[in-house]
Amino acid sequence: MASEHIVSAFDQELNELKNKVSEMGGLAESQLVNALEAMQRRDTDLASRTIESDARVDEMEHEIDAFVVQLLALRQPVASDLREIIVALKISSDLERIADYATNVAKRTMTLAQSPQVRPAHAIPRMGRLAISMIFDVLDSYSDRDTQKAIAVWRRDEELDEMYISLFRELLTYMMEDARSISSCTHLLFIAKNIERVGDHATNIAESIYYLVEGRPLLQSRPKGGDEEYDRVDAPPDR
Amino acid sequence: MASEHIVSAFDQELNELKNKVSEMGGLAESQLVNALEAMQRRDTDLASRTIESDARVDEMEHEIDAFVVQLLALRQPVASDLREIIVALKISSDLERIADYATNVAKRTMTLAQSPQVRPAHAIPRMGRLAISMIFDVLDSYSDRDTQKAIAVWRRDEELDEMYISLFRELLTYMMEDARSISSCTHLLFIAKNIERVGDHATNIAESIYYLVEGRPLLQSRPKGGDEEYDRVDAPPDR
Repeated sequence: MASEHIVSAFDQELNELKNKVSEMGGLAESQLVNALEAMQRRDTDLASRTIESDARVDEMEHEIDAFVVQLLALRQPVASDLREIIVALKISSDLERIADYATNVAKRTMTLAQSPQVRPAHAIPRMGRLAISMIFDVLDSYSDRDTQKAIAVWRRDEELDEMYISLFRELLTYMMEDARSISSCTHLLFIAKNIERVGDHATNIAESIYYLVEGRPLLQSRPKGGDEEYDRVDAPPDR
Repeated sequence: MASEHIVSAFDQELNELKNKVSEMGGLAESQLVNALEAMQRRDTDLASRTIESDARVDEMEHEIDAFVVQLLALRQPVASDLREIIVALKISSDLERIADYATNVAKRTMTLAQSPQVRPAHAIPRMGRLAISMIFDVLDSYSDRDTQKAIAVWRRDEELDEMYISLFRELLTYMMEDARSISSCTHLLFIAKNIERVGDHATNIAESIYYLVEGRPLLQSRPKGGDEEYDRVDAPPDR
């Protein structure tokens, strides 16, 4: 009887931990949604509110960290309970980074809004929508313990990488054609990179979910995209 | 007697964990040293060896993760032992990122080596030396449990941020002056950003060491540098 009571209290705590992670996920997702909407509408008020709300995400990461340490010390979990706790720690750290990248997008939006809009900016919302859908689905797969959905997110990152590489080239070409666009395009370059990185963290979360459910790491190797090797763009001939 | 034996075996395991983290730190530091040397000497052989050796760092992170899970499950540690284990997990994740950033510098070096050298490249080694010294000192402070040294690293990040902002401006100006430099300068921009991010992770490690030794978080707030708000550079007048 006493033992049953203890187990059930622990189950409740694990559930609370899971809810905290999901809540933090919802906040990180809103950060990204708001940052991208602010960018698209050139809405500096929304951008500035987005920057402010990042503090709450950081706070939640600390709460989860503290809760994890407490659970480890008091409950001394093993097997799947231990994985549940370790994975909460890992996912919350990925979510904190995602919210940070979103905040960075909002900060750059504040600066971009002061300059005339440049053409390649229109490709960003598409990248943004893909990244948002990855976060949405990976959080769903965390709630439902759905490894198939997690693996699907993990695969979709390749598409985001390809969009990034193509936008990178477009931005470089645009900068070469019009020196006045260089400052704005550089911010867009970093915004695109931030969104690409959000996808990497969604991928990490997908891997954590796989480990949580299956008890072993996801060992398939996903082609790692990036702009390191593909982004040489030759300057146009001298004018 | 039996209990003493168990405690001492556990102490040995904690020591092994600490050594693994230090070893991984040494690898991440070498990655950065080699990547920056390759960049400075335009040495594509060294850059390519640096890219290859990143796999070993990733492997070590997995080893440490697995060891941490094993220790938590078998030893059910509390208090400072638990902190030791949690902090090893956090530090190894920061070290993995540091090595990733170094690898990214090496990848971009491969591309940069194919183009004529641009002037602002000379400012990168200075940033690199500062970042390397931060990694070196923070690993030292981990070995010695020296919070004063950790706090000093934590403070030094501001200098790195300032160097980054000034280099960012220089690169933008240079791109505006010479469209043929845009592709190279963009890689330098990302290299500089990578080094700036290495500093952020050294800062995280410093915070982890403080928490490990003091049992509470380092709550002072450090001004977070970055290029989001300071990097508007106006285009030169139309030519």
